[in-house]
Amino acid sequence: METTAAPVRSQRVFRFENGALTGREDRVSVEEPLEIRVGATTLAVTMRTPGHDFELAAGWLVAEGIVHRPEEIVRIEHCRQVRSPEEEGNVVLVRTTEPAGAHVERARRMLVTSSSCGLCGKGSIESIRGEFPSPDPRARVEAGVLMRMPDTLRAHQASFAETGGLHAAGIFTLSGELLVCREDIGRHNAVDKAIGLLFREGRLPLSETVLLVSGRASFEIVQKALAAGIPIVAAVSAPSSLAVDLARDSGMALAGFLREGGFNLYSGEQRLSGPSPAR
Amino acid sequence: METTAAPVRSQRVFRFENGALTGREDRVSVEEPLEIRVGATTLAVTMRTPGHDFELAAGWLVAEGIVHRPEEIVRIEHCRQVRSPEEEGNVVLVRTTEPAGAHVERARRMLVTSSSCGLCGKGSIESIRGEFPSPDPRARVEAGVLMRMPDTLRAHQASFAETGGLHAAGIFTLSGELLVCREDIGRHNAVDKAIGLLFREGRLPLSETVLLVSGRASFEIVQKALAAGIPIVAAVSAPSSLAVDLARDSGMALAGFLREGGFNLYSGEQRLSGPSPAR
Repeated sequence: METTAAPVRSQRVFRFENGALTGREDRVSVEEPLEIRVGATTLAVTMRTPGHDFELAAGWLVAEGIVHRPEEIVRIEHCRQVRSPEEEGNVVLVRTTEPAGAHVERARRMLVTSSSCGLCGKGSIESIRGEFPSPDPRARVEAGVLMRMPDTLRAHQASFAETGGLHAAGIFTLSGELLVCREDIGRHNAVDKAIGLLFREGRLPLSETVLLVSGRASFEIVQKALAAGIPIVAAVSAPSSLAVDLARDSGMALAGFLREGGFNLYSGEQRLSGPSPAR
Repeated sequence: METTAAPVRSQRVFRFENGALTGREDRVSVEEPLEIRVGATTLAVTMRTPGHDFELAAGWLVAEGIVHRPEEIVRIEHCRQVRSPEEEGNVVLVRTTEPAGAHVERARRMLVTSSSCGLCGKGSIESIRGEFPSPDPRARVEAGVLMRMPDTLRAHQASFAETGGLHAAGIFTLSGELLVCREDIGRHNAVDKAIGLLFREGRLPLSETVLLVSGRASFEIVQKALAAGIPIVAAVSAPSSLAVDLARDSGMALAGFLREGGFNLYSGEQRLSGPSPAR
């Protein structure tokens, strides 16, 4: 059983307003490092909001192409042999089946290779495209359904309302039902947590879903969606150039500035059911 | 001479509004990987907005404690011997003096150590506190001066107005004069670019300045300010718990939700000149 740590903590602050400084209690988002170890190897250290750590680790392993099926994760737990009290709850140990173990080795080699020989947008898109198949081409969503998603996500953001300091990621069905909402101080962690939950339930590939993020859509967000088989990505704010390129090359729809009144579609207009484009 | 790449690019999009889909040209923020090499060693690969790459690399090296004075950087340039056209402009080579070369080795060892033995908020704060001295205790700022800074920063955010997709970091004097504003798809890159510029001009430690970020203040942002000797950090949005802890332990002021009408002070109330706190 995973225990869920508090994502927010009480904090004494001084509020400056109308020329005066007043002491009060406030709530801040908790940020702590999480180390993900597979076997004896540390694969990542990420600054994250504690809670749903196993989902975060599982989602991260999916995005890196290290695991593909839930049964490849034999065991996942917090490290009990910590070297200091502060490490407690901040190290996740993952045991994988043999094939996954081989993937770990490959991921390590790739990491070393890519950072010692240089990396480029193009090369990196090509290597990712080769690793993950394009999502199911049949998935489509109605514009009206898409436009209602941000309100639904916001209604589920418990911690944001308290602290104003967390990113959210939601995975929706094509008819707009929210399957999971996760919050984290890092947008990529929120996505890993959401995908990780559904992965552990054996629901990947997520061929009939939409991933919505509360902020911007970077390359990394689109890459994580691709790894999970998600065909449609939407962001409340702007996408980056590399996010657009990866979505186009992978046949994914990418919507940005999804807000009351409309959105921009940067890729995958064929995935919008309803209006056809006036070119 | 560093050439400045375009931070935005034109992008064909479909706008959905009032039930109709219309094609149009839009602008998106450019995101590309930057590899930072010191000597023959790759120390970092970061997704960034091209432009001001040398400042980004210099600022990153300052934050990592690898260089402390501008003359420790003997040479900084884009790699010309790229293996593919796409690498062009995305690899920065830095040559440092001997002592800095030793720092590189130390940074590499620290990296390996910290990720193989686990990392924790406390341990990491302690190691950072030991490495960088607390900023000058005399620096103070008036609340009114602080509250005018976000407007000044916004007025200098050329690319954000175009794309809505960039973070900004500004460094101000204690009387509110903007010394430098930098934008990037990654908030930590914007901070590295701003600090890197002033570092290269020989202006560190920045004992009489305020760092303002357009979004949230994470641990990493406060850590970079500390490395540059900046005593006051302000954010338009929320800080994280670890950002608050590091600021307190280092005697820095940390203001959040800096907006019209007021702000929260999470640390360093002694650095606010003017009102004294009603406790």
